[in-house]
Amino acid sequence: MKKILVINGPNLNMLGAREPEIYGHQTIADIEKLCQKAGKELGFSIDFRQSNAEAEMINWIQESGKFSALIVNAAAYTHTSVAIYDALLAVKIPVVEVHLSNIFRREEFRHHSYVSRAAKGVICGFGADSYLLALKGLKELLDA
Amino acid sequence: MKKILVINGPNLNMLGAREPEIYGHQTIADIEKLCQKAGKELGFSIDFRQSNAEAEMINWIQESGKFSALIVNAAAYTHTSVAIYDALLAVKIPVVEVHLSNIFRREEFRHHSYVSRAAKGVICGFGADSYLLALKGLKELLDA
Amino acid sequence: MKKILVINGPNLNMLGAREPEIYGHQTIADIEKLCQKAGKELGFSIDFRQSNAEAEMINWIQESGKFSALIVNAAAYTHTSVAIYDALLAVKIPVVEVHLSNIFRREEFRHHSYVSRAAKGVICGFGADSYLLALKGLKELLDA
Amino acid sequence: MKKILVINGPNLNMLGAREPEIYGHQTIADIEKLCQKAGKELGFSIDFRQSNAEAEMINWIQESGKFSALIVNAAAYTHTSVAIYDALLAVKIPVVEVHLSNIFRREEFRHHSYVSRAAKGVICGFGADSYLLALKGLKELLDA
Amino acid sequence: MKKILVINGPNLNMLGAREPEIYGHQTIADIEKLCQKAGKELGFSIDFRQSNAEAEMINWIQESGKFSALIVNAAAYTHTSVAIYDALLAVKIPVVEVHLSNIFRREEFRHHSYVSRAAKGVICGFGADSYLLALKGLKELLDA
Amino acid sequence: MKKILVINGPNLNMLGAREPEIYGHQTIADIEKLCQKAGKELGFSIDFRQSNAEAEMINWIQESGKFSALIVNAAAYTHTSVAIYDALLAVKIPVVEVHLSNIFRREEFRHHSYVSRAAKGVICGFGADSYLLALKGLKELLDA
Amino acid sequence: MKKILVINGPNLNMLGAREPEIYGHQTIADIEKLCQKAGKELGFSIDFRQSNAEAEMINWIQESGKFSALIVNAAAYTHTSVAIYDALLAVKIPVVEVHLSNIFRREEFRHHSYVSRAAKGVICGFGADSYLLALKGLKELLDA
Amino acid sequence: MKKILVINGPNLNMLGAREPEIYGHQTIADIEKLCQKAGKELGFSIDFRQSNAEAEMINWIQESGKFSALIVNAAAYTHTSVAIYDALLAVKIPVVEVHLSNIFRREEFRHHSYVSRAAKGVICGFGADSYLLALKGLKELLDA
Amino acid sequence: MKKILVINGPNLNMLGAREPEIYGHQTIADIEKLCQKAGKELGFSIDFRQSNAEAEMINWIQESGKFSALIVNAAAYTHTSVAIYDALLAVKIPVVEVHLSNIFRREEFRHHSYVSRAAKGVICGFGADSYLLALKGLKELLDA
Amino acid sequence: MKKILVINGPNLNMLGAREPEIYGHQTIADIEKLCQKAGKELGFSIDFRQSNAEAEMINWIQESGKFSALIVNAAAYTHTSVAIYDALLAVKIPVVEVHLSNIFRREEFRHHSYVSRAAKGVICGFGADSYLLALKGLKELLDA
Amino acid sequence: MKKILVINGPNLNMLGAREPEIYGHQTIADIEKLCQKAGKELGFSIDFRQSNAEAEMINWIQESGKFSALIVNAAAYTHTSVAIYDALLAVKIPVVEVHLSNIFRREEFRHHSYVSRAAKGVICGFGADSYLLALKGLKELLDA
Amino acid sequence: MKKILVINGPNLNMLGAREPEIYGHQTIADIEKLCQKAGKELGFSIDFRQSNAEAEMINWIQESGKFSALIVNAAAYTHTSVAIYDALLAVKIPVVEVHLSNIFRREEFRHHSYVSRAAKGVICGFGADSYLLALKGLKELLDA
Repeated sequence: MKKILVINGPNLNMLGAREPEIYGHQTIADIEKLCQKAGKELGFSIDFRQSNAEAEMINWIQESGKFSALIVNAAAYTHTSVAIYDALLAVKIPVVEVHLSNIFRREEFRHHSYVSRAAKGVICGFGADSYLLALKGLKELLDA
Repeated sequence: MKKILVINGPNLNMLGAREPEIYGHQTIADIEKLCQKAGKELGFSIDFRQSNAEAEMINWIQESGKFSALIVNAAAYTHTSVAIYDALLAVKIPVVEVHLSNIFRREEFRHHSYVSRAAKGVICGFGADSYLLALKGLKELLDA
Repeated sequence: MKKILVINGPNLNMLGAREPEIYGHQTIADIEKLCQKAGKELGFSIDFRQSNAEAEMINWIQESGKFSALIVNAAAYTHTSVAIYDALLAVKIPVVEVHLSNIFRREEFRHHSYVSRAAKGVICGFGADSYLLALKGLKELLDA
Repeated sequence: MKKILVINGPNLNMLGAREPEIYGHQTIADIEKLCQKAGKELGFSIDFRQSNAEAEMINWIQESGKFSALIVNAAAYTHTSVAIYDALLAVKIPVVEVHLSNIFRREEFRHHSYVSRAAKGVICGFGADSYLLALKGLKELLDA
Repeated sequence: MKKILVINGPNLNMLGAREPEIYGHQTIADIEKLCQKAGKELGFSIDFRQSNAEAEMINWIQESGKFSALIVNAAAYTHTSVAIYDALLAVKIPVVEVHLSNIFRREEFRHHSYVSRAAKGVICGFGADSYLLALKGLKELLDA
Repeated sequence: MKKILVINGPNLNMLGAREPEIYGHQTIADIEKLCQKAGKELGFSIDFRQSNAEAEMINWIQESGKFSALIVNAAAYTHTSVAIYDALLAVKIPVVEVHLSNIFRREEFRHHSYVSRAAKGVICGFGADSYLLALKGLKELLDA
Repeated sequence: MKKILVINGPNLNMLGAREPEIYGHQTIADIEKLCQKAGKELGFSIDFRQSNAEAEMINWIQESGKFSALIVNAAAYTHTSVAIYDALLAVKIPVVEVHLSNIFRREEFRHHSYVSRAAKGVICGFGADSYLLALKGLKELLDA
Repeated sequence: MKKILVINGPNLNMLGAREPEIYGHQTIADIEKLCQKAGKELGFSIDFRQSNAEAEMINWIQESGKFSALIVNAAAYTHTSVAIYDALLAVKIPVVEVHLSNIFRREEFRHHSYVSRAAKGVICGFGADSYLLALKGLKELLDA
Repeated sequence: MKKILVINGPNLNMLGAREPEIYGHQTIADIEKLCQKAGKELGFSIDFRQSNAEAEMINWIQESGKFSALIVNAAAYTHTSVAIYDALLAVKIPVVEVHLSNIFRREEFRHHSYVSRAAKGVICGFGADSYLLALKGLKELLDA
Repeated sequence: MKKILVINGPNLNMLGAREPEIYGHQTIADIEKLCQKAGKELGFSIDFRQSNAEAEMINWIQESGKFSALIVNAAAYTHTSVAIYDALLAVKIPVVEVHLSNIFRREEFRHHSYVSRAAKGVICGFGADSYLLALKGLKELLDA
Repeated sequence: MKKILVINGPNLNMLGAREPEIYGHQTIADIEKLCQKAGKELGFSIDFRQSNAEAEMINWIQESGKFSALIVNAAAYTHTSVAIYDALLAVKIPVVEVHLSNIFRREEFRHHSYVSRAAKGVICGFGADSYLLALKGLKELLDA
Repeated sequence: MKKILVINGPNLNMLGAREPEIYGHQTIADIEKLCQKAGKELGFSIDFRQSNAEAEMINWIQESGKFSALIVNAAAYTHTSVAIYDALLAVKIPVVEVHLSNIFRREEFRHHSYVSRAAKGVICGFGADSYLLALKGLKELLDA
């Protein structure tokens, strides 16, 4: 059974409460449940984490050697963290970048992503489904 | 059975022959076949088109009223066509933007997309799977 | 009786349906009717055309030799088409640029116009009346 | 009888003498006469003013409550005056921006207008006729 | 009893009427009353002025020698007036910049202030209370 | 008794020692004492914290639900942290941004603040008094 | 006998009539004649085409497989067409970019060329001779 | 006897008191005296004026027809006033721009001058001698 | 014996594994050994640390009072951390910035360093020898 | 027999040794030979020079009066030398700019040329043939 | 008798022949004669030099210790030479920058001067009189 | 014995006299002595040169084939010389860039270096020790 690490960045623990008109009413726990369920169907074991700390996210990326792939929603650090980018560069497994909202319809400073430079693919704007599509995309990728 | 219109822009008719190190070896016909197959499984009827002409693409978008959703890979026009953007703004059905390659790892001028401003979601970097993920994303979206 | 060519660009065939809060509820046919009526009063024969195709617009501009003046609403091509600008540069009759909306109160990328560089005058923001004012302006200009 | 306030900005009192290759040979008095004549035909009472002082223009805009509409040729202040823009924002009657010349064919710094951001419509490039077209545009607007 | 000069810039005489969703419903007279009241409590004599004219504001700043401090809400001139900045540079008493609204949440061109470069401190976003906080801040400053 | 959370960012624990010509000779403990004293007079219970860690600041902001208002001196993170901005966006209580120094008279990169975009008001340049003025501003705001 | 495809872009069908002070008095037919004559001397069979339509130019480039080389004067599309650039990237035969005028002495927006990024070499400023030099350059290149 | 108009802009009435380390200890009256003295020697009648008001400066420029030349130290308006630039454009007599300080060694925003675009020559950095050199330069110019 | 603190930033714990074509095959432990050896020869006691956390690096900088000098390889934070810059500004001992790679031959965003603004000197591109040269440079500096 | 001066700039004396993957294996002497041979065929006497010194190149340009035309490969000075541009401006004979490589496919800073602003035409990307095409272009030009 | 060194930069040896509509018909020898004559009247011994070589100009500036002042017309190097700027920074005698033409009315790239940053004053636009005014300005300066 | 060429650029011959607060009191001869001494210890024969002429520096770089390494302090040419960059690109021996001062703490235009793009490593800010560290760095590099 392949293991997938899902890393969520700052303020995603506030989902549901935080600006629901942008991020929807699902909590991060709801999203994890959906991922676990989809993971089971796809034959993936999902390790789902969230942190507000850039360094903890870097640690998780550095220690991702035992996983088959990485799904990263770096939230605000997407746009500012060269350190996460550097951590991802050292990772040899495929990385998929996801966002709940379509970041290209929001403030200008959210249009640039350091994560994209290190990712295999990018999926955004589908709400929680962005994660599920990422899992499905990885299914194809890892089977190929 | 819901109908999905898939619009492909300039030079995508050259897939397989054109820069395979970026776009892979599948032809546009191969991708259509994959979409038709996935469409059947998801209960979608797929209308799959390609054009090198901006105006033809605009016409197709304008006449998309009978479809339930739109998948758009505008290729080079992604980055330059305000006219396609305007056409998409007038569309009331959901639009998903797809790209075969991860456009954010390519030339600077490919990082900006007019299509993104009018799309529900964006999927890029998964090769032909970008289309299949778009179909799956629309399945969830249209069922919800 | 002087002949005036009115050229409308992409997506203007969708008027009435497209974003009515910006463009109003009149269709392109409504606007043509208003222009024909005003033309009659001013002693102008109006040739009123619309195209989504940049090349067709260029062809029309190139063949405008038999007209006394040109009214151009290039819509989205206003902001991107050097080719239409070049076609207008070769035209010896007066050109008036019109827009239904006030393009300077919209997205930043709509503030720049290649058409303005080749036009005698610019009228925008008056809805369908922008065309009628252009006709009146040309009346004065051609009589002078 | 509806009252229209026409406000002219700095150096327009020099018309006729100042750079006639750009602004023509008509004086500001000539333009006023044309406006008064056109006003009479359209059923407008015209109050036509000129000032070199930004503050006086702001005062006039602030006191425009008794007018049905405002025509503003802010001349050089068009490009630099946030204060006139703010004054116009507080005005509830329609504002039409006019210019004698086509400002988009002149120096780069004349391409940006603070007035446009607060105006219903913009007319430029028709010489004195820019004012007459503005009056005609307002006639339609106020009758509607 | 220390004397404080409060200088208000263009369009602030329209407060209450002008865009109340941004500036609130208080008039400039209301704000003066609040300042006078607070001044009494703090032991300040307040000279409260408003002008739409950049030059008058410069004159007042130049003649502020008999005051202990200056509170400046330069309104639109905040963003454009090097001349007011130069006048403030020549002033030896402390200057506090105030704004009713939080200028950093408004249009981009309101984010830059020439006044800030010459001010001891800046207070914005508290409505009329911005002035009262400025008075309290000066109380501490002048007592120290 | 209303509770106010005061959050101080990186290097503010070094106050007094760090560049006293910019930040003055008061320590962070001195400033807390002044705040506690002012809080008592205003009927506020003050919770005063400092951290060098972006993530800890985000945690505090996320957990600020039991407070009536937030005072934030994000120090260096003011200019770089989209993550703190996102955390503040999710907060429903009023936020006041403070700085000891006038950030607009310092290096160019200190002129932009992500915090300002999420704050009710901004106060800077009054040294420790910036905090006291923020408390007074909140007093008025919360009483209204 | 080697076959060379010469592709001319928008408005080049107007040569002779269009701005002769920039483009000279030769028509596109004159230029073709010169190319055919030079082609004969160099042992080339010349296929000489002109189109105002970006899509038609793309089609021609895509179908250039039977030619030994490509000469492209993309005119206005030189500066705006990523789609033509993409089409050229897929071409395996040498591409020479030509312009009648020296584009670097004209408007700023004509200084950038997407075609140059995909071309072997660039020749501009020699009027119709630009084409003849391109043929001669290709002669050497193809013989080598 | 030729008449020269010398126009001084905002805050120059504060010379001597204002930032003497930049502008020196001479007052504007001192400078006028030096100019009058030099004028006598050169056979010029000097009309020396100062205003803080942009509009008054424009008026003076507009009425300069009876003078043989204009010396302008527009001070802060140098960098911001398109209106003064426009007024100078309408002037047919030679204009010399002067500054007491070397504006190119000061803040970035003082490096650009609208006055320079309309001036025959520019002299800066010589303190009061900038004016005397301007008079001498005009002497040569007018005699030639 | 003088004490030197060597601070290494994010992802440097991955050296040897991470992009060896850029950073070489030495681990961070290898580099520490080289530093300890060189330190002994130079009479320095070396305290060698690494952290992925910006805040921990700030803490270390703040507590560097007992050291004679600081060597900082801030890695990715070099380019983004104003907070580390502020911490360094408060340090009174000499700071030397080092990098393994020549950052000026890498991506554009790695060309700017906040650390350089606070450093005595900069050494980059020598691999592990960058550290040894820094120690030698400090030897001279501290002996002088 | 017409005389042509060919001026080569810095580092072109290193051709063959320097980055042969960009500039090819021909030496500057090889290129001169080719030019001399072509010159003979075209009826030109060729004076072929190379210098690493900007001033020497300027001298040669200044003294080019006895030549019928100038071919300039300014190499690195192409992008930086206003002085060479000024020298070329004073030249009355036609100037052709050549480059061995296609400068538009290289680093960004090589895309701008001061020489182009003063040249009749530009030829680049053909290796040594760029020179021969320039000679042929001049043949036509001088015969016309 | 005080000695003044006058340094003229590239292409000024071509004066009279070079673009007389900008630079006039006087040769550099004519200007030297005027300077020598004026020098005699002012009690200056003038050493007047011209060079096309940046390095020679730097040498002259470095060796200017025996002069009382320096007049520099660096021509094209004005806009590009940091090296001349650095040489001037090391000079302790006053430097006056002169230009024949008003550089601010010419191409954008001529508006920036490295020389201005190191000069006491700047004089431009007076033709050869720029030099004479510089001498007169230095007379005052050195006598003071 | 390995030979090292040390190339010093413009104005470095003025060291000691020129801005000692930035560059220190050592002369270029002092620095050469230090280098010769260090060279002896390291087993290097040092050829130490200085020139104010860009072309002479290029010549030296071109002729550096007999050396084992190059140390370059290009001074002002660091920031402007593409020609020196091109010369360095053709060099096959290691290049170390040095500067006496920390160029990143000086004017903005000194932050960019063309030399860095061609150098193995960069050392700046250590005064004369920058050279000695470069020698030591080369010792390691050449021994490896």
